[in-house]
Amino acid sequence: MNYSIIRYILCRVLEFQALFLALPCVIALIFGEREGAAYAAVAASCLLLGFLGKLRKPKSTVFYAREGFVAVSLSWILLSITGALPLFLSGEFPSYTDALFETISGLTTTGASILTDVEALSRCNLFWRSFTHWIGGMGVLVLILAVLPLAGGYNMHLMRAESPGPTVGKLVPRVRHTARILYEMYIFLTVIQIILLLITGMSPFEAVTLSFGTAGTGGFGVLNSSIGSYSIASQVVITIFMILFGVNFNVYYLIRARKPLQAFQHEEMRYYLGIILAAIVLITVNIRGSFQSLLEAVHHAAFQVASIITTTGYSTTDFNVWPEFSRAILVLLMFVGACAGSTGGGIKVSRVMIMLKMVKNELSHLIHPKRVRQVTFEGRVVNKEILRSISVFFIAYAVIFGASALLISLDNLDFTTNFTAVAATLNNIGPGLDKVGPAANFSVYSQPAKFVLMFDMLAGRLELFPLLLLFSPSTWKRS
Amino acid sequence: MNYSIIRYILCRVLEFQALFLALPCVIALIFGEREGAAYAAVAASCLLLGFLGKLRKPKSTVFYAREGFVAVSLSWILLSITGALPLFLSGEFPSYTDALFETISGLTTTGASILTDVEALSRCNLFWRSFTHWIGGMGVLVLILAVLPLAGGYNMHLMRAESPGPTVGKLVPRVRHTARILYEMYIFLTVIQIILLLITGMSPFEAVTLSFGTAGTGGFGVLNSSIGSYSIASQVVITIFMILFGVNFNVYYLIRARKPLQAFQHEEMRYYLGIILAAIVLITVNIRGSFQSLLEAVHHAAFQVASIITTTGYSTTDFNVWPEFSRAILVLLMFVGACAGSTGGGIKVSRVMIMLKMVKNELSHLIHPKRVRQVTFEGRVVNKEILRSISVFFIAYAVIFGASALLISLDNLDFTTNFTAVAATLNNIGPGLDKVGPAANFSVYSQPAKFVLMFDMLAGRLELFPLLLLFSPSTWKRS
Repeated sequence: MNYSIIRYILCRVLEFQALFLALPCVIALIFGEREGAAYAAVAASCLLLGFLGKLRKPKSTVFYAREGFVAVSLSWILLSITGALPLFLSGEFPSYTDALFETISGLTTTGASILTDVEALSRCNLFWRSFTHWIGGMGVLVLILAVLPLAGGYNMHLMRAESPGPTVGKLVPRVRHTARILYEMYIFLTVIQIILLLITGMSPFEAVTLSFGTAGTGGFGVLNSSIGSYSIASQVVITIFMILFGVNFNVYYLIRARKPLQAFQHEEMRYYLGIILAAIVLITVNIRGSFQSLLEAVHHAAFQVASIITTTGYSTTDFNVWPEFSRAILVLLMFVGACAGSTGGGIKVSRVMIMLKMVKNELSHLIHPKRVRQVTFEGRVVNKEILRSISVFFIAYAVIFGASALLISLDNLDFTTNFTAVAATLNNIGPGLDKVGPAANFSVYSQPAKFVLMFDMLAGRLELFPLLLLFSPSTWKRS
Repeated sequence: MNYSIIRYILCRVLEFQALFLALPCVIALIFGEREGAAYAAVAASCLLLGFLGKLRKPKSTVFYAREGFVAVSLSWILLSITGALPLFLSGEFPSYTDALFETISGLTTTGASILTDVEALSRCNLFWRSFTHWIGGMGVLVLILAVLPLAGGYNMHLMRAESPGPTVGKLVPRVRHTARILYEMYIFLTVIQIILLLITGMSPFEAVTLSFGTAGTGGFGVLNSSIGSYSIASQVVITIFMILFGVNFNVYYLIRARKPLQAFQHEEMRYYLGIILAAIVLITVNIRGSFQSLLEAVHHAAFQVASIITTTGYSTTDFNVWPEFSRAILVLLMFVGACAGSTGGGIKVSRVMIMLKMVKNELSHLIHPKRVRQVTFEGRVVNKEILRSISVFFIAYAVIFGASALLISLDNLDFTTNFTAVAATLNNIGPGLDKVGPAANFSVYSQPAKFVLMFDMLAGRLELFPLLLLFSPSTWKRS
């Protein structure tokens, strides 16, 4: 382990955190809130610490995959710890643990809250919660890569450790350009959504915060009713943009590169849209009776399906009271998640489809043991190493899931609550069912259980292994 | 597909079914029950059909893995359909679907019942239910292989398709001898248990039926309170034998071959016993307050842990009312299951341990990408083909689990009931939690949901792929 380079990266991250924290300061100034002082103080501390820690240049530029994973994991933990400080100092959170839970939930784009009354928060805190979604959605290190000229071969390792999906493709040969293009598209889509929400009659503050929450597929809202009390037009805009932000950004790159045909043929996107459509139809049929018109049922089905599969977690209605079949569909969608290379979480559509193809292949392998069959995806043969890593990912996922559900069951809440609480955090969604349903929140859990769920949120966002590596002694050996 | 050989094997199976059905006839004669007539009639029909169908010798002896899978799957379906007839004809079951559910539950050693009052059944029906556990535990085709001199190279294919676990090792070079040794050990252990239960004061009828249920890790009892109203001594005997029947039979073969040291070093057995011990300790601590003495808490914890991990499903107390932590441990044990090469179900200890080792290996692979690390189990390197097949098994398992839970949710029962109903059937356990808990039964589900659960029981017992292959069109092509 090259400790000096990790230190250097963490200091860079602290400087960026100072920059991030400056924004809620501005919001506090605009709305004349004294909570802004906490943001200013923490921002200044981060800036100073980052500057001082960076004075000594790293001794060695050795940087392998291991350093990449550790740098990314520690960066996210550092952002969480420092990001929680102003929330705690504002006095609007019961404890530092709760503020930390909320910050991790924000950065990992989960959107699970421990607050019972969101509307009681100051504007700058509300803004910060939503802004962490936006930062976490595309990734902090990807942003640093896009902005700073980092020399050395470690860019790809950082990008790979932070970006979701079974494989990370560079859009263009240089990692830095790839990162920049990703952020350009991300900002572009966010701005469009803000404009559309303004047109549908939202206030600028709400348009910006809710667009941040949509873009990062986060789910923190600014009202206790989540999205329920906005106009239908606003809800439709959010539905569409949730779906858009769950699409693999390669598709947008193809459109940007004027290759619409290739964009249209993107296999993962097609499965993703197919699953969304099927889920909307099934749920609409199932909930039809509870709504006055078919259109209303379709509207609510579409919003909740888009919200859950993209792992955003907004809601327009309490789907916890829906019939069990609809609830079961939503729970399944929690696991599927959005596309790889999007801002969404979950197992990812591409992994799920490749795994289904592996099962299909196994059947024909059993019938014709000598015939060699390969799994293809996006028109290419998926190599064995990727198939192996997808399988191991899924196994690790199940292990973490089971262990987490067992640990939080010590709080003696019911099985459905525990199961969906883990599903909602490990997949970075936000609401689950029953006591953690869309009309409830995570304050029902004890402090130890909250730490388990914080681990799950980080593990989910970083796709398990970067975080798991922190617990392996051999990670920390000097080489 | 070589249809004629499949027909031949199915006719053999019918003849054996006639033999099996003769036993409840004898019981009916002993207790003077008129329900025995149904068994006699069905037995005679099976014998006749088997004899007639076997008249034309198979045209070809071509027999590959595919034929093995199909023969085993169809044999089990045939045994279920014919085995349900006397139950239905006795008039003691509400419908043929319910009789079929009970028979599949028996043969697959699940032990899930649709009956609200077991004690109202006639003796011959009770005997038949328990006897199906014993037949299904070690396998029908393994029995046929042990008894009949089947020529040709297809023995191994049949054995592999019917025996649980990631790999099937022949104990001795010849498959027929292996099958015979397995049944010898199976009968030996069963007889010992019967004798011990008689000594603890059980009636001969109860000692035999409950031993059948233990040996097959089935779980059908003859009283509504399952095992709750027997003496502590009887309960202890059953606890010990449940654990014994969940051990890989290779261990018994090693003891029989006077290699106690090798038996003692069996890795899967060690993990299996370790998990049992850990679960008993954790649950005892958790439930201590509800029992008068520590010993009583240990006793009930040990019984329920043994019952669930071996996928038997007996109960001495209603663990559905235990604290959530204990319930969660039991749910996790449902998935782990017993050892491969035992009569128990579930994912199997060896698969779980190999999967955990795969995750551990992945971590060191990420730290040192160039170092080659292999997974070892039972002192040997596990080859890549087996690792791949274990991964695909787990993926297929998760897919079937999710699809089943979704389908039965149409009945609009709660999430916990649906989730544990699938867990209890796919892992061949019996009771789940809440509305399918040990004090409840599966009559709460509709007929369509029961068919889904019947599929899960068969899929679980045959380890998914043999049954899935029946749904693949290319299985049925003549070659």
